[in-house]
Amino acid sequence: MPGSSVNRRIVLKSRPDGPPTPANFAMEEGPIAEPDDGEVLTRTLWLSLDPYMRGRMSDKKSYARPVPIGGVMVGGTVARVVATRDPGFAVGDIVVGSGGWQDYAVLPGRGLRKLDPTLAPISTAVGVLGMPGMTGYVGLLDIGRPRAGETVVVSAASGAVGSVVGQIAKIKECRVVGVAGGDEKCRYAVDVLGLDACVDHRAPELGEALARACPDGVDVYFESVGGAVQRAVWPLLNDFARVPVCGLIAQYNDAVPQPGPNFSSVLSKRLTVRGFIVSDHAERIGGFLRDVSAWVRDGRVKYREDIVEGLERAPDAFIGLLQGRNFGKLVVRVAS
Amino acid sequence: MPGSSVNRRIVLKSRPDGPPTPANFAMEEGPIAEPDDGEVLTRTLWLSLDPYMRGRMSDKKSYARPVPIGGVMVGGTVARVVATRDPGFAVGDIVVGSGGWQDYAVLPGRGLRKLDPTLAPISTAVGVLGMPGMTGYVGLLDIGRPRAGETVVVSAASGAVGSVVGQIAKIKECRVVGVAGGDEKCRYAVDVLGLDACVDHRAPELGEALARACPDGVDVYFESVGGAVQRAVWPLLNDFARVPVCGLIAQYNDAVPQPGPNFSSVLSKRLTVRGFIVSDHAERIGGFLRDVSAWVRDGRVKYREDIVEGLERAPDAFIGLLQGRNFGKLVVRVAS
Repeated sequence: MPGSSVNRRIVLKSRPDGPPTPANFAMEEGPIAEPDDGEVLTRTLWLSLDPYMRGRMSDKKSYARPVPIGGVMVGGTVARVVATRDPGFAVGDIVVGSGGWQDYAVLPGRGLRKLDPTLAPISTAVGVLGMPGMTGYVGLLDIGRPRAGETVVVSAASGAVGSVVGQIAKIKECRVVGVAGGDEKCRYAVDVLGLDACVDHRAPELGEALARACPDGVDVYFESVGGAVQRAVWPLLNDFARVPVCGLIAQYNDAVPQPGPNFSSVLSKRLTVRGFIVSDHAERIGGFLRDVSAWVRDGRVKYREDIVEGLERAPDAFIGLLQGRNFGKLVVRVAS
Repeated sequence: MPGSSVNRRIVLKSRPDGPPTPANFAMEEGPIAEPDDGEVLTRTLWLSLDPYMRGRMSDKKSYARPVPIGGVMVGGTVARVVATRDPGFAVGDIVVGSGGWQDYAVLPGRGLRKLDPTLAPISTAVGVLGMPGMTGYVGLLDIGRPRAGETVVVSAASGAVGSVVGQIAKIKECRVVGVAGGDEKCRYAVDVLGLDACVDHRAPELGEALARACPDGVDVYFESVGGAVQRAVWPLLNDFARVPVCGLIAQYNDAVPQPGPNFSSVLSKRLTVRGFIVSDHAERIGGFLRDVSAWVRDGRVKYREDIVEGLERAPDAFIGLLQGRNFGKLVVRVAS
């Protein structure tokens, strides 16, 4: 562990060309900054690793600015306040915010939300009760709009977002079919999360397997992966199906963009395809926290964390995330 | 003109492989059928020719059943009642319905709507005040949801649907940029329909021309063509842009489906892409007729018809429609 006067930070050393490698990252050490008026100094406890970070490593135009070369990698964090010049916070408070890949971060108080550590394990504030959970909640309910009896297919079904989507779709009385990588994740999706079926995207004849699991077609496809899974689901979409698009992890490392599905299906099936970013839906946080906290408490929404020990292991864990190596919400324990 | 005891009908002789040819159609003669209880015998006055008919000539799965080989080609018609066994109709009534490519049709009364010929030229009931006009109205207003000051791009801007879209978008105080084939149609879109600009899709560097015409990007792209126009518009779409998809005429003759745009733009720009078929929105007919009739009366919505004389010319005119040879709403005068 670092001495208390040193801040370790992981910066973007170079932009990846294809899959990121350890050489794209560098660990640096520096002094711990002081908070200014309205700011808070936080000690990172948990760092969230999420697929969107691949986009920030790239400098092509997107919805958010890229991390500059030499800049600290961005990321959601759960942290403890160690100094404060914002009267809304006290030393010792546990907060969730965007501290990035580092031991300490000085952050504006208005960007932080205080947590009550007695309500739920604090790491869930970057998982099932945080950005990934809210992505699933908003995307499924507001964009997917599932109705009881419909079939919902969710990609990355054992992951941070997909596991929330699948379980909420079950609460909404849908038939829910997951897609996940490998037997173990598929068994988990069915046996623990309660999905009706789960198809291994690595299996040969994915399309046929998915068609068997969706005898009535697909009404909502919650898209977070793109690529082969998208191609397998597309022909199964029913008339008036909805496709919330929250990610395309299978395509993030592509040098040449993959074409999308032919639009004749969009027309003839009257599909709605809609991309969304959870931060555009901040007004839903109240409903999300109320509903999902209750479902977690009563066991209707389960979650699984894949915990990596130590900030220095974040680059390797992130590289693995893009390959599907994690099992559950990937978080780094930066300090206890 | 045919004798009154003979019904000429144009049937689908064979399915086209690529662009339809005259050999895909055949003119047949037969007796005029008699109406049964609840049915009406109608004499076709106007036959509408519309791009969707290309889909019905094909037997691949779509939202509507294909025309069977040997079956009469489907089509919207304005017709005069010549015999009736539906008490809701009298001989001499002018009705709009789906009589197909033939001189006479026996139709269920419940599928017909009576027209008041003093309100508007009756041919408009298959044009600006009919299915194409309503397609533009519903697609732009309900799916495109344009706001004042936004930029709307409309493909096939001088056509039956596009001309309605463009003019309603102007009424809604948008910047409206049309795309049309050739100088004459483009001049018409600007000078007569009042669009802010119109770009010739046959011009070299379509993308650059369109970018110059849309300095603030594109908020609504009303899609009816696909192909090169779609590829030119896509990079110009703004965050949260809406893309109502009502047709893909440039792709209807493709043997191999063209891929669609890469989905990363759908995600990063939070696009909404939604296919629609006007018949799913029948509940909007009241609002459509009220609004667009008023706009036509006060000159805010203008229309142009491309009139073909004689049923026997329908196949050639339809083939031309798919090549953009018509200028305005294509209708066949089957009888006076």
